[in-house]
Amino acid sequence: MRSRSGPLRATLPVTDADVVRAAAALGPDVVHTPTLHSRTLSAITGASIWLKFENLQYTASFKDRGALYRLLQLTAEERRCGVVAVSAGNHAQGVAHHATRIGVPATIVMPRSTPNVKVANTEALGARVVLHGDDLAEAHAEAEALAAREGLVWVAPYDDVHVIAGQGTVGLELFADAPDLDVVVVPVGGGGLLAGIAVVAAARAPHVELVGVQTELYPSMANTLRGGGELPGGASIAEGIAVHHSGRITAEIIGALVDDVVTVPEATIEQAVNLLLEIEKTVAEGAGAAGLAAVLAEPERFKDRNVGLIITGGNIDPRMLASVIMRGLVRSGRLSRLSVGVTDAPGTLSQVTAIVGDRRGNIVEVLHQRLFSDLSVKSTVLELAVETRDRDHADRIVEALEDAGYPVRRGEPG
Amino acid sequence: MRSRSGPLRATLPVTDADVVRAAAALGPDVVHTPTLHSRTLSAITGASIWLKFENLQYTASFKDRGALYRLLQLTAEERRCGVVAVSAGNHAQGVAHHATRIGVPATIVMPRSTPNVKVANTEALGARVVLHGDDLAEAHAEAEALAAREGLVWVAPYDDVHVIAGQGTVGLELFADAPDLDVVVVPVGGGGLLAGIAVVAAARAPHVELVGVQTELYPSMANTLRGGGELPGGASIAEGIAVHHSGRITAEIIGALVDDVVTVPEATIEQAVNLLLEIEKTVAEGAGAAGLAAVLAEPERFKDRNVGLIITGGNIDPRMLASVIMRGLVRSGRLSRLSVGVTDAPGTLSQVTAIVGDRRGNIVEVLHQRLFSDLSVKSTVLELAVETRDRDHADRIVEALEDAGYPVRRGEPG
Repeated sequence: MRSRSGPLRATLPVTDADVVRAAAALGPDVVHTPTLHSRTLSAITGASIWLKFENLQYTASFKDRGALYRLLQLTAEERRCGVVAVSAGNHAQGVAHHATRIGVPATIVMPRSTPNVKVANTEALGARVVLHGDDLAEAHAEAEALAAREGLVWVAPYDDVHVIAGQGTVGLELFADAPDLDVVVVPVGGGGLLAGIAVVAAARAPHVELVGVQTELYPSMANTLRGGGELPGGASIAEGIAVHHSGRITAEIIGALVDDVVTVPEATIEQAVNLLLEIEKTVAEGAGAAGLAAVLAEPERFKDRNVGLIITGGNIDPRMLASVIMRGLVRSGRLSRLSVGVTDAPGTLSQVTAIVGDRRGNIVEVLHQRLFSDLSVKSTVLELAVETRDRDHADRIVEALEDAGYPVRRGEPG
Repeated sequence: MRSRSGPLRATLPVTDADVVRAAAALGPDVVHTPTLHSRTLSAITGASIWLKFENLQYTASFKDRGALYRLLQLTAEERRCGVVAVSAGNHAQGVAHHATRIGVPATIVMPRSTPNVKVANTEALGARVVLHGDDLAEAHAEAEALAAREGLVWVAPYDDVHVIAGQGTVGLELFADAPDLDVVVVPVGGGGLLAGIAVVAAARAPHVELVGVQTELYPSMANTLRGGGELPGGASIAEGIAVHHSGRITAEIIGALVDDVVTVPEATIEQAVNLLLEIEKTVAEGAGAAGLAAVLAEPERFKDRNVGLIITGGNIDPRMLASVIMRGLVRSGRLSRLSVGVTDAPGTLSQVTAIVGDRRGNIVEVLHQRLFSDLSVKSTVLELAVETRDRDHADRIVEALEDAGYPVRRGEPG
């Protein structure tokens, strides 16, 4: 899909010079986020991994950049009237924060189903939040009505040349701070970030391969570039890139300058969130971990290459994060559910737990259930959540229990 | 306790020149970690907060620095024989990683009660792990025996001039990257990090106030400097600074150069871990969050000042981190347990949950328990874990339930 030289490139709607102008306009009002090499992720993936921590941006995502640069284009009259945006996520926070900061009234329309915490966060940043409709399309219609009624200026989340130029400043920093990259993997929802980075790469690092990544549930940009395809949809851990329709301007730029747009399974994204947390000690939202997921999903493609990944945001629901952590322990064999068949008699619990404890298994939960056992009425099931060093360690504990006459069924903790 | 000029300072066992030599020796084998300003934590605390992300160090703590600089002092003969250290935590990983990297055999002695994950992590870094004794003192005795028997060189965790000089490189980076600090708060266990930073501060930033912080369960350095006091002990979330005995060399330096050593409650440390996770998107272990806890505990002291905090490490047990997240939701009123008294009849569950759902409360757990109710036998208790925007929102849901005739008792989710 790429043709970085030739006539197409000359006519693209955003240029490297536009991005440089955006960087100058943003100045210190967005964070120049750090880019660090990760030895452990490099060892795990077989690639040499560089991470740009855009989750350390003020509202914890790169969206600050495009939102602010768009707001800086407003006329004095437009600034007085205010702006409106539709978003249940990072775009909302970016617009709300910077509009409030520069004195522009901001209205954010969100679907009624938006989690409370996102509503509260956006209000706390100074925006008026309007809850409307069952999905983003219905919220969008309401925003248009509001814009017409109140004279508000529409701030698009990605399909806007100034927004794209603003997001492109991520690329300026990345190529300056990690000059030896061979390939950069960029999460793609609407495509603003990838389009902006692609414009910069074409001018400054034309040898660098550019790969977009989407969740396999929402391959909107990949489909657009391929001229069609299924969009499975559904609940994604990567809400920030779970977008039904790619942008028109972004697709034009990405089609011209990007090498490939790949998709990754939800489970791999979840694993990437967990690795970033456990190894890099950083909180990535699903979309922010999609780049690492792409490397995990296709290690051969990235082997021994210098890979730049952008942790695009860190706004993950706390409950979801807690679940990701616990499921990560299960996946790596460090937490197991053992359903142990025991006789319903005094002393049994003590015998079973002694076998586990003697082998340094750490029992973190016990459920003694009687009603739904498929064993005889004299028997009962003891469900143990046991923390172990690894899967082998859990296996040895299971063997010891079975050697002592207790049948064990293994499963995942609820 | 401070007297930064005069005869004492001239005779201190570590100098700024020693730290500069350490920085040169460490070179790129430790990470120059980023220092970033936090607008949101500044808004919350009333101080201007600068964070140094030492949790982005290779083994996710500053201990890499002192361990490596000590290892670089070994003679060729000592390098061949190998080293031994006692630690169940970050010192173990720092020694294991760098010893393995430079080809020195490393033995780490840990108490038998050490969590599996720490044993596995240390082994994965290439060290031999010996589990011995019920506590660090017993492990220490075994390490001395091993050192004598096998000719191993002892690598002290803090009370060593080279270790202190290595940790001091944190200060070199901090004062270079955040030149306008008024006060720096440093977590103190044995005191190696604070001593190293104090030496640098005395030479380069003598106007900066230095404050050490300990958990109130282990005020070992504070007691040493004061000439005595209670050490409550017990299980701490800040394992990295839960130290019974402060160092002799570190206490000498800290006594001469540091303004104050304060203590903070465990609950405040937990709150700080959660704030760093939710707002800064970074994983701090308890000890690593102690500096922020000190600011939260005593806001007047730091108000309107430029405060430097070192996030010393990020090695927190994943299960503990998940608990901190969920308890944080409870503490901030975003997750409530409502025990609702209902009649044991078909349809009740639907009526109660409709009242909650209509008011945009999100039910995340239901427990319908019958046996342990103190209500009449015809009644039963429905326990709901409900996610809300904030405490007020939860209050309104409770009112609505009570208005509909359902008595509610509020509590914390288990």
